[in-house]
Amino acid sequence: MQITLTLPDWAIEENARLPEFMPSLDDRMRAVIRFSRLNFERGTGGPFAAGVFERDTGKRVVIGVNRVVPHHCSSAHAEVMTLSVAQHILETFDLGGAGMPAYQLVVNWRPCVMCYGATLWSGVRSLAIAGSGGELEAITGFDEGPIHPEWDTELAKRGIELIQDVLKDEAIAVYRDFAASGALVYNGRGGS
Amino acid sequence: MQITLTLPDWAIEENARLPEFMPSLDDRMRAVIRFSRLNFERGTGGPFAAGVFERDTGKRVVIGVNRVVPHHCSSAHAEVMTLSVAQHILETFDLGGAGMPAYQLVVNWRPCVMCYGATLWSGVRSLAIAGSGGELEAITGFDEGPIHPEWDTELAKRGIELIQDVLKDEAIAVYRDFAASGALVYNGRGGS
Repeated sequence: MQITLTLPDWAIEENARLPEFMPSLDDRMRAVIRFSRLNFERGTGGPFAAGVFERDTGKRVVIGVNRVVPHHCSSAHAEVMTLSVAQHILETFDLGGAGMPAYQLVVNWRPCVMCYGATLWSGVRSLAIAGSGGELEAITGFDEGPIHPEWDTELAKRGIELIQDVLKDEAIAVYRDFAASGALVYNGRGGS
Repeated sequence: MQITLTLPDWAIEENARLPEFMPSLDDRMRAVIRFSRLNFERGTGGPFAAGVFERDTGKRVVIGVNRVVPHHCSSAHAEVMTLSVAQHILETFDLGGAGMPAYQLVVNWRPCVMCYGATLWSGVRSLAIAGSGGELEAITGFDEGPIHPEWDTELAKRGIELIQDVLKDEAIAVYRDFAASGALVYNGRGGS
């Protein structure tokens, strides 16, 4: 009646190697995209990664990765892993609590419907994504689920800024390489 | 870089006390609603619970509860906890995998946007809920997020049956008692 979710050893080592502060958003996204590639190449999860940073200083809390298959846990998407580890490190269920700096979630595509919700409830004040279109699903075969048509204004309503198309081509290149690798797409299911 | 999520001791004991098979859907929901009440009354989480059962035999896998506040984890909603524990017990990230019986998720209201997504990715073939209207938000103050307008047909598209309004009044009674208790509403945030 207990579950334990971990980042892979390589991700812990890579986090330790990164600078404590990453002021440039491009640098943050570049690191996230690198993790997304390493994750499927090393067989530790799907091609998805996410990072939590202090938005204004770039102080890194953690970059995490998808762990669905190794942990037998369909909820262990990159955003859920990363937000949960960040909240564990900072000892709060609310990254937007009183007296805290504004936190930013950086992801290598628009979150799926589950992770979109996880973002809303996390307390982050900023979401930066590499892209939001149909490319991810078309290239990889993953199902991203039915996102609300006004997903962007629904973020704004809850005080979460949205920054789009950060290093989009680099993110797509990882999806292409993932698709070419023949790796497992773990959530594709039609109405059968 | 590791998180451990557990059910409270009382929930482990209550699970052990329940019959192995619960053929009646009303009995399944009654147990889930009971857990939702015990969870806030004992101070171990919000007024939400969920159960995973074999749909056709009623064999119980586990009933779990919300653990957001005690675990400092905004993703530890009842559905995510319960689906994750069930997948851990059954050693699979896909409860709809080949050769498995059809699994049913029973929840004391329509899942929030995050948990709606978690349901889609879990592999369950059936979702039974106590209700889906605005009563939960109106009574408790929790934000359930922007669910897609065609959330029900989107479930059907992925082969998940939907059973609504199971013991609705009993579920609402717990929300009323929760609201009257003055307990913490942990995700309310306007656009500020």
